[in-house]
Amino acid sequence: MRDFSRDHAWLSINTATIRKQGDLLQISEACARHGIRAISPWRDQVAAVGLQATKAAVRRHGFKLSGYCRGGMFPADASRRQEARDDNRRAVDEAAALEAACLVLVVGGLPQYSRPGSAVSLDMALARTQVEDGIGELLDYAKSAGMPLAIEPLHPMYAADRACVNTLGQALDICDRLDPARTGALGVALDVYHVWWDPELHAGIRRAGLARLLAFHVCDWLVPTRDLLLDRGMMGDGVIEISKIRQAVEAEGFAGFSEVEIFSEADWWTRPMDEVLTTCIARHRSAV
Amino acid sequence: MRDFSRDHAWLSINTATIRKQGDLLQISEACARHGIRAISPWRDQVAAVGLQATKAAVRRHGFKLSGYCRGGMFPADASRRQEARDDNRRAVDEAAALEAACLVLVVGGLPQYSRPGSAVSLDMALARTQVEDGIGELLDYAKSAGMPLAIEPLHPMYAADRACVNTLGQALDICDRLDPARTGALGVALDVYHVWWDPELHAGIRRAGLARLLAFHVCDWLVPTRDLLLDRGMMGDGVIEISKIRQAVEAEGFAGFSEVEIFSEADWWTRPMDEVLTTCIARHRSAV
Repeated sequence: MRDFSRDHAWLSINTATIRKQGDLLQISEACARHGIRAISPWRDQVAAVGLQATKAAVRRHGFKLSGYCRGGMFPADASRRQEARDDNRRAVDEAAALEAACLVLVVGGLPQYSRPGSAVSLDMALARTQVEDGIGELLDYAKSAGMPLAIEPLHPMYAADRACVNTLGQALDICDRLDPARTGALGVALDVYHVWWDPELHAGIRRAGLARLLAFHVCDWLVPTRDLLLDRGMMGDGVIEISKIRQAVEAEGFAGFSEVEIFSEADWWTRPMDEVLTTCIARHRSAV
Repeated sequence: MRDFSRDHAWLSINTATIRKQGDLLQISEACARHGIRAISPWRDQVAAVGLQATKAAVRRHGFKLSGYCRGGMFPADASRRQEARDDNRRAVDEAAALEAACLVLVVGGLPQYSRPGSAVSLDMALARTQVEDGIGELLDYAKSAGMPLAIEPLHPMYAADRACVNTLGQALDICDRLDPARTGALGVALDVYHVWWDPELHAGIRRAGLARLLAFHVCDWLVPTRDLLLDRGMMGDGVIEISKIRQAVEAEGFAGFSEVEIFSEADWWTRPMDEVLTTCIARHRSAV
């Protein structure tokens, strides 16, 4: 396993981690100031400052993009299906323009949450079929753009409203059906927050192998967790054995960035940007 | 599938559903008044009025007990292991005294949460081993008391602090190792709240079969869910396809009670007991 204790060469900052403290250009300046080599921006943050300005900042600071957040939200009724398709193709285009390592897919839950305005449905099996169909269709487009797609299995507590792909095994089943040759065009974004609880996690990581491990995200699970979405913890403040998971991922040959992604309304989003980044760096060294 | 639309003969009330509105004797009176035939009480509620008084109330009203809540919390450090063992044996004794259909096991998470005072550990694999060892040991005692043990897989959001058995498949693996002959002494309590999201749910129900399906619990998953523990919804108010799950359970031959278990601090716990029970009955007919 790589030694992270001496530097933060393999730290990436998911820019949602400090989204309340500044715009993407200010976040980029701060990351550069702290010697951070990689970021992973969100589409709304890019849109707010413009794709060209983002591209210029990425080039100026020499950033790598460990990923681009995010495509997905595939379940939709007929009235919203074209919107979902177009939106995802634009996400691929933006990711390609920024030379991201992959486009992260949060696949969506039931259609009324995934694409608001869609008719209400409680049919999870149908939502899952629509997800797989949507990824299959997008994959052709993404291949032509040379942009790998990373399915992010989300914690089961988000099954209804954010993603009906809820385990690594389920994500890998989709990968195997749509990309049986393991070409590198389709894989997973493994976020410890979503998968740490899974008794099949380590078997899943071995099954994934290097070809499917496109991104590795870290944060921590707090006890108690006070909000289902916005109470993620800083690495080391919760119960996840992060380094044991990183060890398993690296045993498969993964040698990419460790991307910090923390949504924390009551804590980290209220602190100064520099304090958050300083803490991310320290915890990257001690707790990842 | 049984027709629940005409009566509520197969409705059971888990007494936590109205725990804030009265003690167990008052709850029993109310259930009897509404023609409810079965309840499932919690140990602290029994302790508050006394086991003998509970027994007398159960006899007076002719209640069946669809289950008894709850044993478990197995992970513990050495200093708390005897406490865990003794506590679980008392739970079996109480369940037997009340002639419950099964003792429900919420198995516990990490030892510091499962048995407070235990040394801090983040080792989920170890906690899972302790759970299996604990169930194995308790099973011998429960068999001699004629009390079936029902492992309740809990939603993954409770993995750290309440139960590190988080999928039906994982629970069935334990059952198969400890009771390979499927004697009826060990099975699962299937609560739709905990398992509805699982893409392997229906395969798991088929695998469980009648021998392992000891209890069936219902409520609903609300979107948004405002609290990880205390924001369960009334059947029909959320996104779970409850009747589809009941259909699968009954296809295996399950013909027991449908037990309503709702923890709802901001809503159902604030309403009058009779209103909650009237609603449970109506939704049992229309949404289960």
